Amino acid sequence: MAKVFVHDQLIRFSHCDPAGIVYFPEFFDLAHATMEDWFREGLEQPLPDLIRERRIGTPTVTIASDFLKPLSMGDTLRFELTVLKAGNASVRLAYSGKKDGVEHLRITQTIAFVALDAGTATPIPTDLRPRIEEYLVA
Amino acid sequence: MAKVFVHDQLIRFSHCDPAGIVYFPEFFDLAHATMEDWFREGLEQPLPDLIRERRIGTPTVTIASDFLKPLSMGDTLRFELTVLKAGNASVRLAYSGKKDGVEHLRITQTIAFVALDAGTATPIPTDLRPRIEEYLVA
Amino acid sequence: MAKVFVHDQLIRFSHCDPAGIVYFPEFFDLAHATMEDWFREGLEQPLPDLIRERRIGTPTVTIASDFLKPLSMGDTLRFELTVLKAGNASVRLAYSGKKDGVEHLRITQTIAFVALDAGTATPIPTDLRPRIEEYLVA
Amino acid sequence: MAKVFVHDQLIRFSHCDPAGIVYFPEFFDLAHATMEDWFREGLEQPLPDLIRERRIGTPTVTIASDFLKPLSMGDTLRFELTVLKAGNASVRLAYSGKKDGVEHLRITQTIAFVALDAGTATPIPTDLRPRIEEYLVA
Repeated sequence: MAKVFVHDQLIRFSHCDPAGIVYFPEFFDLAHATMEDWFREGLEQPLPDLIRERRIGTPTVTIASDFLKPLSMGDTLRFELTVLKAGNASVRLAYSGKKDGVEHLRITQTIAFVALDAGTATPIPTDLRPRIEEYLVA
Repeated sequence: MAKVFVHDQLIRFSHCDPAGIVYFPEFFDLAHATMEDWFREGLEQPLPDLIRERRIGTPTVTIASDFLKPLSMGDTLRFELTVLKAGNASVRLAYSGKKDGVEHLRITQTIAFVALDAGTATPIPTDLRPRIEEYLVA
Repeated sequence: MAKVFVHDQLIRFSHCDPAGIVYFPEFFDLAHATMEDWFREGLEQPLPDLIRERRIGTPTVTIASDFLKPLSMGDTLRFELTVLKAGNASVRLAYSGKKDGVEHLRITQTIAFVALDAGTATPIPTDLRPRIEEYLVA
Repeated sequence: MAKVFVHDQLIRFSHCDPAGIVYFPEFFDLAHATMEDWFREGLEQPLPDLIRERRIGTPTVTIASDFLKPLSMGDTLRFELTVLKAGNASVRLAYSGKKDGVEHLRITQTIAFVALDAGTATPIPTDLRPRIEEYLVA
């Protein structure tokens, strides 16, 4: 059974637009915060250390999202993060965004591992690969 | 021949992350600014008036993006916006993001037309449809 | 003794600029999040309800900040919020922003209470005033 | 007579909050964009080059703002930027934010010049000082 990384975030005033609902680019910032916390808590490799000490970045290569139902300030957004694929130098992530157990949005995102000083792709670090694969759905 | 809406934006300090490149959710905000200017200049229907006077919103239903090459502060991002499909109550847009003529990212986005007071989908206004279709690629 | 509302937030990748430190406008968004949580937890009046149900908003009238030391991603920013003054229709707040017990920034902010439908100032609601004054420093 | 750097920006959908007016931290981002364009056009020293080539940053040390009247999407915000003081290693700027000639907000900001690699204050570069002083109000 794959692990699922569960992450709750409050929808704030500043996430919302003049229609009173979340301005959609904010969902990608909320997803990024989920990914950061997954690295720190789920993979035990904080992103700031990965970037500053190991000089590895994780830029987003592709992202796609379906927005099924709107969210408003005061709502709690629960993201459930799983891994769809662990490639050589990239990972494909899925985020199911729920409110009260009902899916409101879905995101799939491919991040690459990049050696920041060379500016080139680098394989998933060998210490991280098994931890990432714990979240790999069959 | 379909029209193309061409829109230049400067990549600013605040768009960039600790790696010195654009933080990807900012690209969706830049695309939204392009769409706003397309409504005002290309369709001659400013979005603020559409929202406040006609009470019609244009939420994003799906969006997908490929990030091919990074952009940094000081770069000029040119978005070329075209229409892929004009449905009954939705429009599918394509954005090709270029720097110096070279594509750096691609976005496709479906927006819905929504009657804000009822909270339900509404057909593309009849005065806007022919103007939107001028940008429809074959 | 005045109460102090203590609020911890993680400094994230997206808060930081190409110099690797927090882009200063983000501090005001982090302060706003602190104020939101103070309304909900400290005053037991969630801001979304204040806005939607009671039709009262709390726009910022003045704000001033001294940035003493930079913060970087991975840092935990602790804001200590107190009330400097409770006027008729406005409240003056102080935020001391600390990392590891050392002050890194200071913000003072005056918010007004505004009747959203009339668009005019309105007195601090009588149920909120005593709760606000618990945080009033002498 | 001191020069005034005049800078117009459109208030966009994404700058506005659920009350339909600009979320105040966005004003600081808009002021920063004004400062960036002043460096490029007014001082003929683009900030990205200052940071990357000369390794000098311009962090904000203090900022204060009065918000006199709200702005909404579709408005054009004109910032008039002048210099209040040119110190040894810092500059104090004033921004008057107007709509249709009427002041809606005022910002004063002190930026420091910092040698990014040493992390310490550095005097205003001698080639920039006379250009900065052209904007100095008596």
